[in-house]
Amino acid sequence: MSDPRYETISFLSDYGLRDEFVGIVKGVIVDIAPHARVIDLTHEIPPFDVRAGSLALARCIAYVPTGIVLAVVDPGVGTARRGVAVSVGDGRGILIGPDNGLLSMGTALAGGADSAVVLNNPKYQLEAPGATFAGRDIFAPAAAHLCNGVALRELGDAVDPNALLPGVVPLSRSEGDDIIAEVTWIDRYGNCQLNVGPDDTASLGERVSLTFTSPTGERSTRAANVVRNFAEIGGGIGLVIDSFGMLAVSIDRGSAAEELSIAVGDAVRISTLTEQGAVTTNVQLRRGPASR
Amino acid sequence: MSDPRYETISFLSDYGLRDEFVGIVKGVIVDIAPHARVIDLTHEIPPFDVRAGSLALARCIAYVPTGIVLAVVDPGVGTARRGVAVSVGDGRGILIGPDNGLLSMGTALAGGADSAVVLNNPKYQLEAPGATFAGRDIFAPAAAHLCNGVALRELGDAVDPNALLPGVVPLSRSEGDDIIAEVTWIDRYGNCQLNVGPDDTASLGERVSLTFTSPTGERSTRAANVVRNFAEIGGGIGLVIDSFGMLAVSIDRGSAAEELSIAVGDAVRISTLTEQGAVTTNVQLRRGPASR
Amino acid sequence: MSDPRYETISFLSDYGLRDEFVGIVKGVIVDIAPHARVIDLTHEIPPFDVRAGSLALARCIAYVPTGIVLAVVDPGVGTARRGVAVSVGDGRGILIGPDNGLLSMGTALAGGADSAVVLNNPKYQLEAPGATFAGRDIFAPAAAHLCNGVALRELGDAVDPNALLPGVVPLSRSEGDDIIAEVTWIDRYGNCQLNVGPDDTASLGERVSLTFTSPTGERSTRAANVVRNFAEIGGGIGLVIDSFGMLAVSIDRGSAAEELSIAVGDAVRISTLTEQGAVTTNVQLRRGPASR
Repeated sequence: MSDPRYETISFLSDYGLRDEFVGIVKGVIVDIAPHARVIDLTHEIPPFDVRAGSLALARCIAYVPTGIVLAVVDPGVGTARRGVAVSVGDGRGILIGPDNGLLSMGTALAGGADSAVVLNNPKYQLEAPGATFAGRDIFAPAAAHLCNGVALRELGDAVDPNALLPGVVPLSRSEGDDIIAEVTWIDRYGNCQLNVGPDDTASLGERVSLTFTSPTGERSTRAANVVRNFAEIGGGIGLVIDSFGMLAVSIDRGSAAEELSIAVGDAVRISTLTEQGAVTTNVQLRRGPASR
Repeated sequence: MSDPRYETISFLSDYGLRDEFVGIVKGVIVDIAPHARVIDLTHEIPPFDVRAGSLALARCIAYVPTGIVLAVVDPGVGTARRGVAVSVGDGRGILIGPDNGLLSMGTALAGGADSAVVLNNPKYQLEAPGATFAGRDIFAPAAAHLCNGVALRELGDAVDPNALLPGVVPLSRSEGDDIIAEVTWIDRYGNCQLNVGPDDTASLGERVSLTFTSPTGERSTRAANVVRNFAEIGGGIGLVIDSFGMLAVSIDRGSAAEELSIAVGDAVRISTLTEQGAVTTNVQLRRGPASR
Repeated sequence: MSDPRYETISFLSDYGLRDEFVGIVKGVIVDIAPHARVIDLTHEIPPFDVRAGSLALARCIAYVPTGIVLAVVDPGVGTARRGVAVSVGDGRGILIGPDNGLLSMGTALAGGADSAVVLNNPKYQLEAPGATFAGRDIFAPAAAHLCNGVALRELGDAVDPNALLPGVVPLSRSEGDDIIAEVTWIDRYGNCQLNVGPDDTASLGERVSLTFTSPTGERSTRAANVVRNFAEIGGGIGLVIDSFGMLAVSIDRGSAAEELSIAVGDAVRISTLTEQGAVTTNVQLRRGPASR
């Protein structure tokens, strides 16, 4: 009875909003824990994309209210992959989801795991006509029962939190004076977040050269200023210090991803700007996917 | 005063999330019944697709909390088609929507109707500048007033629940030893749900042949195993027992609908696998719509 | 302490639902004002489209509950453009957002502004690693603190509400007996709302001629009846009195925007129907974008 009772479930998934998956999960939660409030973080993680889900959760975690995080991107649903619940911040938060790396960055950014359990107690699961919707049958009931004050240890067997599957954190690297970064996220506006912050590129100055390489090996080079908002970019390309403190390749009131044909995973070499680099600065930006 | 007071309105529609329709409906509900909680089941039913809406509601209904179901897919809005409220489970639930078949499967799965009324009492409707948004002006107010304890009979004239428009339930059929099924739903992941469950196909064994026929008459045949999760499929095609207990044509971590160019309404013949059928088992699956 | 305490935040933005922007804003609100309820009006305003956002807000405003309106379409985020909070209806409502015209029509339709402040008190803002997410760092905290009873004047310096940036209201005009209207909104179903109501066209009769001109100068002419619901249109094109009391170019159970290749901003000339106009009445409507 001394276990905390939670009020809020912050919910992230790749379920999409086209089908009724999210609605069913919420129905299950209301049935078990009518007092719980569900906050939708996002449900449009690309299908099966565990890495994109873990990065989105990492971006959210500082703003997630005290309580439960329910995260489901789960291509291995119904197999031996484990469902887990991970306590962070001395129980102020509990992250629930598949043990496939999805929760790892969020857990780390929340200060690391205190303890964890495998969700294998059928008492806190729904009986189901099929095994492919763990969000409904296993994860949502776990979240709701925790909101009701059920102890974490009741949900299943304790596991060493250090034995949970780590996520793949995309790290940037140096090559001579250059920095090789990667596009980790393209948002709705076409801003392309990189896995570097302004401190990482400080030695290169405020005006840099960006060389994009697509998976097929195509290259293009652009000059860019490091700026603090989109309007400062002017007519070209900018490296904006985005709202998460990372650098994003952006253009003002347009989609950098479309203009420059950038995709998540593309490599970006950041170099000190030479005279030659400056030549391509004020390229004419066209609407629609660039063909170059 | 002895009428139930409801807490939850589960809301399904074809309004989409691009426009403000759903937000306006929620505003109307909050104004009338501030205590009511709205659960979005889905709003991305294809425009005007009453059958898709009724199937989605049928999939949801077992997980919908006690209370009101507000369902709006209403191509006949503003015409003589009736708006209705249907009581199920001795008043534990009330389904509200147009009398066009949308509610029929959900009502049946909830145990059948106890009673029903036509929503023709203007006292519980909003005055409106136009007649094309019954969700806002008729259905949402009805749902909210029920939440406040207004009796069902106050909302309008009683009608015989057996006189409500039935939905078209897609039934499978046998042809010799074969079963002719139909694709009733394609979810976000590209899983193609059929209108048969594992019991229906048990006589054919765990390994079957699937022949797809598109409306234009094109055919393709594939072998498939009946499996319990996506990983068991391996590199080919599977008939997964999905989370609703139906069989779905699926591939692991990919879209069966895209790979096989399957659309809702396509016929699928399920047969015992012959040697010849086995030949095509491990086809090379390509990304993108298949041209075969 | 005598300042009102609000319960509801109605939230409209161009954040989209693909990313976690909306979820983060809600997390911030829950942290500050756990009792506040958030109603999503829509988040799918096209990126950067202040005019579309202001029109959507105008359509919503009569149905928005007493409380806070949080509206964010903010291409100038992080620049000198001001964030503001505007009181309407003697404090029954407060609209929060960028001072870029987004709030102007909503404010006017809510009866006009009583008072306004610039959101420049850092005490009620979040510290942020970057300046590009004012919804999270400035607007959401302002909304939440108002819900907690913080006085409007505490949020920043008073400004003359008449000095706020006006929006661009698209007005129709007369040309001889004709009316030149503009397509202001295309909804999910393909209905094309015009900036005229049935009173504006009453002198032309119930049967009119519509001449569409696209930005590239292409023209097409169609006959249409003014009708009260979609079914009345029959097989052709109708001018439906829509749910907001405006006229919308529509077809029954299909997309007028697709059939007629109409886009937001297109001009539509409405004339008395002549014999010649009647010739094109029952055109064969094709699916997909029309090429004529």
